[in-house]
Parts: sequence; structure tokens; C-alpha cells
Amino acid sequence: MKALVYLGPQKKEWTDKEKPKIEKATDAIVKITKTTICGTDLHILSGDVPAVTAGRILGHEGVGIVEEVGSAVNRFKPGDNVLLSCVTACGRCDYCKKQMYAHCEDGGWILGHLIDGTQAEYVRIPYADTSMYHIPDGSDEEALVMLSDILPTAFEIGVINGKVEPGNVVAIVGAGPVGMSSLLTAQLYSPAEIIMIDLDEHRLELAKKFGASKTVNSSKGNVIENVLALTNGKGVDVAIEAVGYPVTFDICQRILKPGGRLANVGVHGKPVELHLEDLWIRNVTITTGLVSTSTTPMLLKTVQSDKIKPAELITHRFPLQDIIKAYEVFGNAAKEKALKVILYNE
Amino acid sequence: MKALVYLGPQKKEWTDKEKPKIEKATDAIVKITKTTICGTDLHILSGDVPAVTAGRILGHEGVGIVEEVGSAVNRFKPGDNVLLSCVTACGRCDYCKKQMYAHCEDGGWILGHLIDGTQAEYVRIPYADTSMYHIPDGSDEEALVMLSDILPTAFEIGVINGKVEPGNVVAIVGAGPVGMSSLLTAQLYSPAEIIMIDLDEHRLELAKKFGASKTVNSSKGNVIENVLALTNGKGVDVAIEAVGYPVTFDICQRILKPGGRLANVGVHGKPVELHLEDLWIRNVTITTGLVSTSTTPMLLKTVQSDKIKPAELITHRFPLQDIIKAYEVFGNAAKEKALKVILYNE
Repeated sequence: MKALVYLGPQKKEWTDKEKPKIEKATDAIVKITKTTICGTDLHILSGDVPAVTAGRILGHEGVGIVEEVGSAVNRFKPGDNVLLSCVTACGRCDYCKKQMYAHCEDGGWILGHLIDGTQAEYVRIPYADTSMYHIPDGSDEEALVMLSDILPTAFEIGVINGKVEPGNVVAIVGAGPVGMSSLLTAQLYSPAEIIMIDLDEHRLELAKKFGASKTVNSSKGNVIENVLALTNGKGVDVAIEAVGYPVTFDICQRILKPGGRLANVGVHGKPVELHLEDLWIRNVTITTGLVSTSTTPMLLKTVQSDKIKPAELITHRFPLQDIIKAYEVFGNAAKEKALKVILYNE
Repeated sequence: MKALVYLGPQKKEWTDKEKPKIEKATDAIVKITKTTICGTDLHILSGDVPAVTAGRILGHEGVGIVEEVGSAVNRFKPGDNVLLSCVTACGRCDYCKKQMYAHCEDGGWILGHLIDGTQAEYVRIPYADTSMYHIPDGSDEEALVMLSDILPTAFEIGVINGKVEPGNVVAIVGAGPVGMSSLLTAQLYSPAEIIMIDLDEHRLELAKKFGASKTVNSSKGNVIENVLALTNGKGVDVAIEAVGYPVTFDICQRILKPGGRLANVGVHGKPVELHLEDLWIRNVTITTGLVSTSTTPMLLKTVQSDKIKPAELITHRFPLQDIIKAYEVFGNAAKEKALKVILYNE
């Protein structure tokens, strides 16, 4: 089969790889029909995730058709249309029993990281019964690809950790795919205001279309003062960090009102300076996390009922064999006006 | 009357001040019968709290007898024995309505900070109806002085924010009065282990007496490795920071297990380095806060029923006029084996 293989920092290749086989009774082999590229894949290609070694097939998102299942798989059979979760859950360990699948002792985020991933014609899914979902008939499968990672990540790590409530003022720093997914899912809780903050005017315009009540271009003037001015000087109830740099984290910590929540979603490669000399007295909460995808079934229902329309995040489509070109477009997202790209294998 | 007056960094004096008068209808004048010194007073004397200006009477803890009440005070009358809260609550603003009295728009921590405090023969208490508590007959008033600040601070900002649960492994960094109060109040939730961490062997011995299951002397070897070794390498569910330095915060962030909670109680004067490059993926929660004293009535009941015995924290007693000497003892706490000092005005 063909697959997108990581060859070391800055190096990747669309090449031949052996088709995966059932290795354990709990495995399934899935033919990928649609996959996508994540910002995390760009981090890997920058060499920021040293656990990913040369020869690894990248990708942790996608939908497909079950090709084969191991003898212990009960919930799926060949021919089933399935949504793949970016997080593998054994369903048995202490963390899985607490719904913290992100920290599953024999899983977590392993696809396209510690085992071969979904940017390929076929993928092996461990613990298939607890790591895949049936796709209801008539679903928009493009939209469901957003449910592999970015929608539950934004919802669980941004909106739920940030405890977004009706009447809140919410700021989201970063209008990329995860920031936009935070914007879409935050609206499930009817906040009074959602302020979107980004450097890119095109993305801020899109954010307004997706439901942001206000936008702040962080390249113009003092972003902290501009956000405070939008909140009568009081600050925000919830700040969602959806970028992963010290400067974007800093914006979040400086715009929180007393009692505010800072939900970090961004993948960070460096420490940040936490201003405890100001924050110790302000009763703030800061959360971090890798998604557990425990809300995927719920989000599937919100998408099916059109409460959330994640297909709007898709800006580009390519056949799977053109994935190198798709990476170029996604890697130049601002210039290309790209959010999410869909790769077809049909 | 006599009072302990702040005269600028490193300078204080026990001197004559005018006796306070009712200024607003919601005020009470209270004769102090017992007060104490807080670590925060030492911070003020070091010049770390610039909002405290020369001439200010220090102190935000104490019990006393109501001398006079304003015309709008209904719950108290002259002669009542009262417990003073370190936090003044108007009971009317948005923050008070959310029980966030710490951030009361006309109160919060103002005693011995923005208005004259309790290290005096008399004190004016604003919003007396919502900032004082009746002392039940037969109470140990020394124990109740611990309820003005350190017990609710440790409980609300350490134990409740840290979400201590039955079966948890809890680490407390700092075995001073607030760390010890965290140790006492954490036991209300029956954690499996409480690991006390401090530099001072005497305080660690006391911590064992107060219920710590294990102790780690942070001056001996690698404290992170030593704590991890006590938890099978897994880390702790809850780390309570009860000191207020970058080095003690750092211990806390490095001993958390995935899903762990870091409850910062310490008063910090400098930023800290937050290791988001490790923590972004670990689903941790970090909280800060000034006490709201919303749990004071509950804690009063636990003290009266002997579930918590805060009088054990009291190591020294002085007549109020000897407060300068008491500051010397409290300022050399390790050498003097001091935890809390009680100052009498009887």
C-alpha cells in the first residue's frame, strides 16, 4: 500500500509500505477513505516530538471501512463504516476507568506517533471496540473527520476544562482549526460574548461567520488593552489558548478576570512565564490536557442534528496520493487561506 | 489606644493611635481580645505589599468583644463575642453573590492592608453583619483565631481547590502554619496518603503528629525523585503549594501525575517558570486564590466537634503589648520552633 512516511525532521515521503496485519485479537484493519492533516503533524515534522521515529506513518484522524477484525472484536465487522479516534483506549486500565483515555496505559495518543497512523491506504487500530465509532447511515463523512481529534480536543480541553457557562465572556486565542472548533463548541453553552484573537484578518472574518461576537487582531496595538477595553476593563471569564507559544499563553493569563479559567489547548515546546506574583490572589484556574475523546459520541449527535457544522472548517480537498501537495497548502495556511484539508482515498 | 503600626519596610512600632470610630452605619467597633501574626505580615514588613502605606495598623486575624455597632448592623450588639474574618464582604456585589468574597468590590482583604487592622486594642470592622461570626459559648477562643485566615485559606485554596478525594495521594509543600492547616483540613476528605515536604526536620516531625503519613526533607537529595519514589514513580493526585517561592512551586509541578491538581496557596512575589512543554499533555489543573472565607461557618463546626484541632498549631503566647517580641519569635520560626503565636489583650 501507499503511505505518508516520516523520515526525520523536515523529511517525509509518499511511498510503499507493507499493508498492516492483525497483530492482536483486539485489532481491526481499516481501509482509510478520508483523512486529514493536523497541526501536530507539522510539529512532528519540525522535530518537536522526538518520540516519532523515522519510518513512522503519520496521521491520527480519519474515517474508513473495516477490512478485517481480530477474534476479540465484537462491536465491528468487515464492511462497517467507522470513525477513528485519535486516542486509543484499552478500556481496562485505571485511567480508562476514569474516562481519561488520553492516559490509557496501553494506548492514549499512539496513532501516527508510536505506531503507524492514518495517512495511508490502510491502518491497524488497536483496541478497536473501544477506539472506533460506527458512522450512522447518511452522515457527512467529511464533517466526521473533524471528530477524530479537533472537535473533541477543542470541546474537552478548551470548553469543558474552561467551564464555559451561559452569560460568560470567552476569549479564544488562535483562530486555527482548533481555535475555530473551540468557537463552534463553546456556543453549545451560550456564552454572552466570544472574542476571537488572531494575527490574521481573514481568519478573524471567518470567525465572525462561525459565531464570534467580537474579534481582536493581535498584530494591531496592545492586545491586552484591546481585550480589556471590550470587557469594561474587567477581563474575561474564560481564555482558551489554541496556539501553543509563550506569547499566546501570556495574552491568556493577562486578560482573565478574578475567578477566571485559562484552558490551555495548544501544544507547547517551551516553558512559559507564569505571573504568579499577580495571579496568586486572583482565584484563577489553569488547565492543560490531551483529549480523551470521551465526548465523541455526544459530539456526533450534535453534528448530526446540525447544532455544530464542522464541515465549514474544511477549505481544501485532495486525493490521498497528492498528500505532499496538501502538506504544502496546510503548512502555508495563512497564505493559502487554509483551515482543514480533506484527503480522499476512494 | 495602643497598636502595632507599619512605618515602611522593616519598620514597625507599638505606639499610640486614635481609637477607631463608627464611620458607616454597617460598621462595628470591636475590642480585640486575641490576635495573631500571619506570614503575610512578614511579607508586608519586607516591603512586598506596596499597597500597605506607612501609618497602617497591621493584622487581619482575631477574636474580640463588640464595643459599638452602626445603625444598620442587625446581627451583632455590644458585648457579643465575635470571630473576625480576614476578608470583608459587602454581601451585595456580583462577587459576593457568587461567594467570591475575596474579590468583594468594597471589601476583600482590606484589614491590615488598606484599612487599619487587628493588631491593636480596638478595630473597626466594615460590613460587620457579613464579616464577623458569633462565637458559641464555651469555645476555645485561641483555636478560633485560626479561623480568621489560615484554616479557611488552607481549606478553600488548598484542599477544596485541589479537589482532595478519598484515596488520593496528596503532597503538601511547606510545613508552616498554612501547610499544617492544609494537612489538618485535607484529612476531612480521607486521602490515602499525605506527604509533607519541608526543609525543617522539627516541622516534619510535628507534621507526622498532625496526620502526615510520610515526610520528605527537601534539603536532603533530590526532592522530586524522593517524592516519586514514595508513589511508585507515578506522582501525586494533589500538590498543595504552601510557601510562595519559584522553587517550591517547581516541586509541585514536577510531582503531579496525569490528571493531577496543583493548588497554589503561597503568596508569590515573583513569576515562576511553568513547564508547559511537559504539562500540556498531562491534563493537570493549577489553581490560585485568596480565601473567600465562605467555609468559616462549616469549619467552626468541625472545630467545635473536635474533628479539627487547630489549637495544636499554637506554640507561643504573649501579652499584646509584647507584640514586637512576638514578631521576633515568629520571624525566626525555625530557630524558635514557632508555628502560630497568640497575642492576648485581656
